[in-house]
Amino acid sequence: MTSSGTTSHPAGGRPEPSAAWELLVSAADAPARGRGRALQEALREAVRAGRLTAGTRLPSSRELAADLGVSRGLVTEAYEQLTAEGYLRSDRGSGTWVGETARAATGRGVRDLAPGGLGAPGASGVAGGPGVAGAPGVQVDFRPGTPDLALFPRAAWAAAQRSVLSALPHRALGYPDPRGLPELRSALAGMLARRRGVVADPERLVVCSGVAQASTLLGFVARARGMRTVGIEDPGSPEHGRLFASTGLDTRWLPVDEEGLLPGPLAASGVRVVVTTPSHHFPTGIAYSAGRRAALLDWARAVDGYVLEDDYDGDFRYDRAPVGALQGLDPERVVYTGSVSKSLAPGLRLGWMLVPRELHAEVVERKRTMDLGNPALDQALLTEFVTRGAYDRHLRRCRRAYRERRDALVAALTEALPGTTVSGIAAGLHIIARVDARYGPTEYFVERAASAGVAVRPLEEFGTSRPADGAVRLVLGYAHLSPSAIARGVRLLADARGRGGVG
Amino acid sequence: MTSSGTTSHPAGGRPEPSAAWELLVSAADAPARGRGRALQEALREAVRAGRLTAGTRLPSSRELAADLGVSRGLVTEAYEQLTAEGYLRSDRGSGTWVGETARAATGRGVRDLAPGGLGAPGASGVAGGPGVAGAPGVQVDFRPGTPDLALFPRAAWAAAQRSVLSALPHRALGYPDPRGLPELRSALAGMLARRRGVVADPERLVVCSGVAQASTLLGFVARARGMRTVGIEDPGSPEHGRLFASTGLDTRWLPVDEEGLLPGPLAASGVRVVVTTPSHHFPTGIAYSAGRRAALLDWARAVDGYVLEDDYDGDFRYDRAPVGALQGLDPERVVYTGSVSKSLAPGLRLGWMLVPRELHAEVVERKRTMDLGNPALDQALLTEFVTRGAYDRHLRRCRRAYRERRDALVAALTEALPGTTVSGIAAGLHIIARVDARYGPTEYFVERAASAGVAVRPLEEFGTSRPADGAVRLVLGYAHLSPSAIARGVRLLADARGRGGVG
Repeated sequence: MTSSGTTSHPAGGRPEPSAAWELLVSAADAPARGRGRALQEALREAVRAGRLTAGTRLPSSRELAADLGVSRGLVTEAYEQLTAEGYLRSDRGSGTWVGETARAATGRGVRDLAPGGLGAPGASGVAGGPGVAGAPGVQVDFRPGTPDLALFPRAAWAAAQRSVLSALPHRALGYPDPRGLPELRSALAGMLARRRGVVADPERLVVCSGVAQASTLLGFVARARGMRTVGIEDPGSPEHGRLFASTGLDTRWLPVDEEGLLPGPLAASGVRVVVTTPSHHFPTGIAYSAGRRAALLDWARAVDGYVLEDDYDGDFRYDRAPVGALQGLDPERVVYTGSVSKSLAPGLRLGWMLVPRELHAEVVERKRTMDLGNPALDQALLTEFVTRGAYDRHLRRCRRAYRERRDALVAALTEALPGTTVSGIAAGLHIIARVDARYGPTEYFVERAASAGVAVRPLEEFGTSRPADGAVRLVLGYAHLSPSAIARGVRLLADARGRGGVG
Repeated sequence: MTSSGTTSHPAGGRPEPSAAWELLVSAADAPARGRGRALQEALREAVRAGRLTAGTRLPSSRELAADLGVSRGLVTEAYEQLTAEGYLRSDRGSGTWVGETARAATGRGVRDLAPGGLGAPGASGVAGGPGVAGAPGVQVDFRPGTPDLALFPRAAWAAAQRSVLSALPHRALGYPDPRGLPELRSALAGMLARRRGVVADPERLVVCSGVAQASTLLGFVARARGMRTVGIEDPGSPEHGRLFASTGLDTRWLPVDEEGLLPGPLAASGVRVVVTTPSHHFPTGIAYSAGRRAALLDWARAVDGYVLEDDYDGDFRYDRAPVGALQGLDPERVVYTGSVSKSLAPGLRLGWMLVPRELHAEVVERKRTMDLGNPALDQALLTEFVTRGAYDRHLRRCRRAYRERRDALVAALTEALPGTTVSGIAAGLHIIARVDARYGPTEYFVERAASAGVAVRPLEEFGTSRPADGAVRLVLGYAHLSPSAIARGVRLLADARGRGGVG
């Protein structure tokens, strides 16, 4: 085959011939179904490893498609995905370039982790964390935060339990490695690299009890380094305030618009740690734009700071490939965290962090003094569950169920509450519904809903701003509800706002 | 039946008739095997609940035995046990009195928890915690801290797993109660009241990941209350220093003699929290005398302070009934903690604390921000394991095995290293061996042992003092070693000291 070429920065004109595209050949040889995904992973990896350097111009999608013998659509899609994630940038008319955002991990260097089948749901977090419980008198509870616990794969889990308990060597029942079971760290690193596009070195992975513990661990480390305040997204998760307060840190709300955290207020705040949900912002559901991803990392580098990426539901995405994790762009500035709380069950208390080299030893020592490490049998169980493919299978099953429920919710809202618009529906376990101002004000709507047996949480509970347009904005969780419960809940909502009548 | 009597304080003369002894009648009706134990529990409970007040004189053992229709030996034994625990005091010649040490829990009041069969092993802790690992070149590892992991009851655990996973309601897979599963708190409270003589209100019990986490939780709470230093036993566990340092607290070594913590240095230290192992001091193996137990609680009340009771191996006692926990004497001044790390496996990361009312809410909030609570399935599993009697059965099995190993170690030492004396052998998973000075100095002995493939830890690693007599004092763990490994290890030790030859 012929090779398309690259140009060095400063760039211009036609790409020169080069061997750089060879690395994409194996992707083109992948089975048809996984080919687009393999192409994206190979490109991402090439940028990260420095094989494609910042400023390098990529061949046109037509040229590369011809070279690789794949459809042009696959290449276009790969370019778009990686541009959205910040690895590439594209100037209309002049082509696609390797961006300057991605930075390699220091230390052991980047590993070549095998790509695999992407596309289904995953992690969990404090964003949309605990808080939902069966309140008295509640018939339908739309408050976000819990997956469908009835989907927990009991049979597969029981099988993994049996297998682990009969095979585990005695010594594995002793005091655990505070970083986590080595086999689990390897399994999770592979899974996260594949599903979430992170740079997942098992030596940088710390098994923890979930995103809440990850926040507390990072908080203590930041406090010990003299920090006093942590930035959180506005709107975002008020729970972070309590978690960081326990580590001696104050929190500051920092505004988010439809592209992500606003760089100006972030820079002016003086914080050096900020908590974010860039792949699927909680609660609005936006994905950070490539520009804002880059700006966020630029900020972190400029202030010698860190971004905590709470990937709470990062790969529950229904209509396109998930946005790759921010951490992939700079593993030395991003502390990545997720858990099985949304993908399996919050009661398992199992999660993970990927920690920059600079902070790693401190985080591990904090983990050790907090609890000496996660339970060994639980870790062996999750290892077994991930490596035997049960985790992927379970996520596919959940994704199908949740997509159906999302569709049921959107359809019901549109029909029963005319004028309602929805957003943040492409991913996650909840949506934002903007109910027309005539059904407001918000307090009235929520109260009427409650008296009709429907629990809802208004968007304004998740931040400091109040809508100027008078519309009622709700954060509606749907994953834990059956389609019929969803339909009933929306019907009750519609009836409730009819019964009173204010605005 | 006739009733023996009591006298009010100030006391003297013969006891007056009273109905106070009625409470002991049910104990006398207990099956013959559990009668002595039931009598002790009933007496203890009567003191705690204030039904027998301080200064009350008890009938003579002969009188009470006649009244209750039990053997006099049972009553004598009960009086001795409760005197050792500090509930009673006895003046030679003038009889036995209710002591002034015991204080009832405030809040919900003391519950009547059913007594049951005592006598076997239990909890775990930081005292003798992590640190043992298969070091290269080590043939026999006598370092203390780990139970025999080969005894882990895999079949019974697997049965409990199956039963839990098939019966657990879906909602139990959600975010856990940070205090712990209510069913587990009840099961543990019953078990601890029965086995360890604690005042175990399930509402004051907090499930945690073990003694290390209990220490950290208490450390953070103490620090938030303005404390700066925590006292630890000398000798004791240096690991506590690192745990408390992570909460912002310094530690101060406080001397322990053959009766327990010395009251003078404790009072002079200015600390208001002290960590202790009163039932089986780590590492020397002494049990605190009744006088020192009382003095410790007096100190805590006087300074508005707290005693952390690390009951790390409290009911592994081989030759007599375990000494009841200090917490039973004043649950508002003692934070009691233990775990399954010595009784089942450290890898399970499951433990408990009993927390005074004054500190309870703060400890729970700290637990919540650390990890939101222990894993739900693990907690359900331990509940099942305890309530179906498997925990008691397992402890009986371990106790038999460990007693045999202890006997093997003592016999081997006496034979192979003439002049060696042993102490702290009545309980626990380790002993103290005092090897004659002619085999020293200590550094030399330990080095020779290591080069012969035997790992030992000298007593002086666990505190600040150095023996004046030049003898080599070793803390030898035996529970994790087979009798033949023990014999081989001692033989290697004996050969090693022969090979070099210094003193």
